[in-house]
Amino acid sequence: MPATLRERLRAAGAPLLEKIKDHPFFAGLRDGSLPGEALLHFARQDADFLLPAYGRGLARCAALTHDHTHALVLARMAVGTLEARQAMALGYDLMAAELERAGDASWRTRPADPSTHAYTSFFAAASASSLAEGIGALLPCSWFYLQIADDLRERHDPGARYAQWVSALHPGEDYREVLEGFLTLVDDLGESCSAGELERLEGNFALAARYEWGFVDAALRRLDWPV
Amino acid sequence: MPATLRERLRAAGAPLLEKIKDHPFFAGLRDGSLPGEALLHFARQDADFLLPAYGRGLARCAALTHDHTHALVLARMAVGTLEARQAMALGYDLMAAELERAGDASWRTRPADPSTHAYTSFFAAASASSLAEGIGALLPCSWFYLQIADDLRERHDPGARYAQWVSALHPGEDYREVLEGFLTLVDDLGESCSAGELERLEGNFALAARYEWGFVDAALRRLDWPV
Amino acid sequence: MPATLRERLRAAGAPLLEKIKDHPFFAGLRDGSLPGEALLHFARQDADFLLPAYGRGLARCAALTHDHTHALVLARMAVGTLEARQAMALGYDLMAAELERAGDASWRTRPADPSTHAYTSFFAAASASSLAEGIGALLPCSWFYLQIADDLRERHDPGARYAQWVSALHPGEDYREVLEGFLTLVDDLGESCSAGELERLEGNFALAARYEWGFVDAALRRLDWPV
Amino acid sequence: MPATLRERLRAAGAPLLEKIKDHPFFAGLRDGSLPGEALLHFARQDADFLLPAYGRGLARCAALTHDHTHALVLARMAVGTLEARQAMALGYDLMAAELERAGDASWRTRPADPSTHAYTSFFAAASASSLAEGIGALLPCSWFYLQIADDLRERHDPGARYAQWVSALHPGEDYREVLEGFLTLVDDLGESCSAGELERLEGNFALAARYEWGFVDAALRRLDWPV
Repeated sequence: MPATLRERLRAAGAPLLEKIKDHPFFAGLRDGSLPGEALLHFARQDADFLLPAYGRGLARCAALTHDHTHALVLARMAVGTLEARQAMALGYDLMAAELERAGDASWRTRPADPSTHAYTSFFAAASASSLAEGIGALLPCSWFYLQIADDLRERHDPGARYAQWVSALHPGEDYREVLEGFLTLVDDLGESCSAGELERLEGNFALAARYEWGFVDAALRRLDWPV
Repeated sequence: MPATLRERLRAAGAPLLEKIKDHPFFAGLRDGSLPGEALLHFARQDADFLLPAYGRGLARCAALTHDHTHALVLARMAVGTLEARQAMALGYDLMAAELERAGDASWRTRPADPSTHAYTSFFAAASASSLAEGIGALLPCSWFYLQIADDLRERHDPGARYAQWVSALHPGEDYREVLEGFLTLVDDLGESCSAGELERLEGNFALAARYEWGFVDAALRRLDWPV
Repeated sequence: MPATLRERLRAAGAPLLEKIKDHPFFAGLRDGSLPGEALLHFARQDADFLLPAYGRGLARCAALTHDHTHALVLARMAVGTLEARQAMALGYDLMAAELERAGDASWRTRPADPSTHAYTSFFAAASASSLAEGIGALLPCSWFYLQIADDLRERHDPGARYAQWVSALHPGEDYREVLEGFLTLVDDLGESCSAGELERLEGNFALAARYEWGFVDAALRRLDWPV
Repeated sequence: MPATLRERLRAAGAPLLEKIKDHPFFAGLRDGSLPGEALLHFARQDADFLLPAYGRGLARCAALTHDHTHALVLARMAVGTLEARQAMALGYDLMAAELERAGDASWRTRPADPSTHAYTSFFAAASASSLAEGIGALLPCSWFYLQIADDLRERHDPGARYAQWVSALHPGEDYREVLEGFLTLVDDLGESCSAGELERLEGNFALAARYEWGFVDAALRRLDWPV
């Protein structure tokens, strides 16, 4: 295995990342054809369920690492995630003023949809099991997010109805440095983990990539529980 | 709230328990119409993913309780679950000799299906969060199981092709006492938990009941990951 | 119990806090009579063992709370603690240039002393058990610290040899606001916890206050393991 | 490193194990010169604090391992420990009838002594951190215990006043098999852990051996908190 861990994960995750970028949810966000309710579902599930669980998973990993630099990287990301949650909760209120159809506020009161609930449970389960498993589960959410946000910014129709939200959803240029710190940590784990830990980290990364796809697919379909 | 916690949970869970008993998976197990592959999917997902996670969730809860009697109840259930896992893994090998269609052994090598993966993550997430949340998430799996096994035994067609498996899947009479210990613990929590903890316990119980339905529904459909 | 939880804890902790302020370690820091090795022992055990464990305990608690505001308070304190750790590690290098006796660098290579090891284990154990237990164990370290730092600043001899370290050890005025956020969280727990949780929180607070005393007593005596 | 992990740990722990066997507490237990209060302190701290924490640490490790056989070994040891706790609690009541000096029942109501509290916190902290760290911290308690019990049985004066307690404290021949299962797990970890994990496991083992000595030393001195 000559490549660093981040390179191996990048290669492993690329096909699914492309599938997510091309998912009708993001296509519709770029060209304005996405139903407003789908975007509200997405923003609310993100702000009220996904980001809170993501921040807590990062905090658990900060507690598990023995490396003080890694602990600081993860704790800062936890703070950033919990702050982003606040911003996104304000965001969906602003969106609602514009996008909510008269009388339909069900997106506000629904619980975590099945896909989001599974993903948030996975964040907690993995980061309660070991540092390596936690990092594998947590990496796609922030890593894919930046790449998707870049792709949206580049490919969206600036005249379409969601142009302002495409801008608002981008985490900003500072986020590249945050992510670089996370990926350095990932590479460090690639050097220090046992073979078994690495296999579990890579397995969780692959699962989390699937859950990333599931999250946007659920938003498009405004997924609800079957029973 | 005059009723004990177990009574409140029994009432809350009853409609979904009935729905599970009447699910085509169990109807087909009773009358022999269930495809063999669905039973193999069920047994393998149970032995290799659900029961291992259930035992570990119980072990986490044993570690969290401050009550020594409760700790012993939970640790013994963890042992029982891990032993049942061994038995079930032998069981699906026996089943396979009978039920596996020539050449189709895909049920053996598939990962946890999306429904099972979500449920097992939920066991770990809830029991890593607090005792009350863990107990809420863990209760339906054993409580519903006994009631479903009783129902299967009572209503199945003794001449139908799965009659022996209906017997084999029943946890036995000793299990009633195990469960009584668990339910006593639940009632004790009902007396000692804060209002917030109780709400989370009851919320997790309701979610776990949904996941119980999802587990058998996934087995019937031999659910696979969409991406 | 008419008082808020912080008031009850303040009253419960006051006698031990006074004992710590008047401990020969801090008396010697104020008047300059403290052996330099004791201060180096203190700074190194703090930077390399206590603060890293404190930050991780805070991160665990951030992961356990269901209140997003509390999660952010705790995650920010975790970041602040891990940053303070870096500063303290630089600090003991500066101290060493001044205080280290020729050839005696044993303070640098010693493991956590028995008192520090017990205290750091307690941080992790309590915050792995429940939010309330974690908060009880974690509160004295920051709450007492500010009060001790204020007391040192007020009562120290400005001409004595440690005057600059008395200043350097003070966490600064912004820390009052951080602590106010923590104490608001404590009061919120006082409103929402069950009686059993509150008892454990208060018991852990009392133990942590003892460990605070033990930490400075160990520094004065440069405590080592008996076997 | 040609030796298995158990052999390396055996060699590393041998000097301290000898020191514990020869500690005045056990010497006095063998020849009857030990004050009765010291034995009561030991039995009560063991039954009410050490064994409950040991059982919970084992349960946490059972939850962390991915190996189903290891999970069963650990969960069974957790059950055995929690059952031994019950027996020891009965035991100290029987001891008290014989050994308690008129009016002095303080051993019954004291909290965990500082040495026991540190050790129990360490069990929880280590097993909340990673499987390898937990196993390192938990191994000496059961491994040393059998060797000390064997040594006591062999070297004690059968006519001395504690002869019956020397017998009662021995875990029995079946315990050798339990321990063999634990040591097989340890050797498996020795094969599969990363270098960093192994170092932490071995470091925790060395600390736990120190805490084993501390536990009996505290019993002899009936250690209390300094503040």
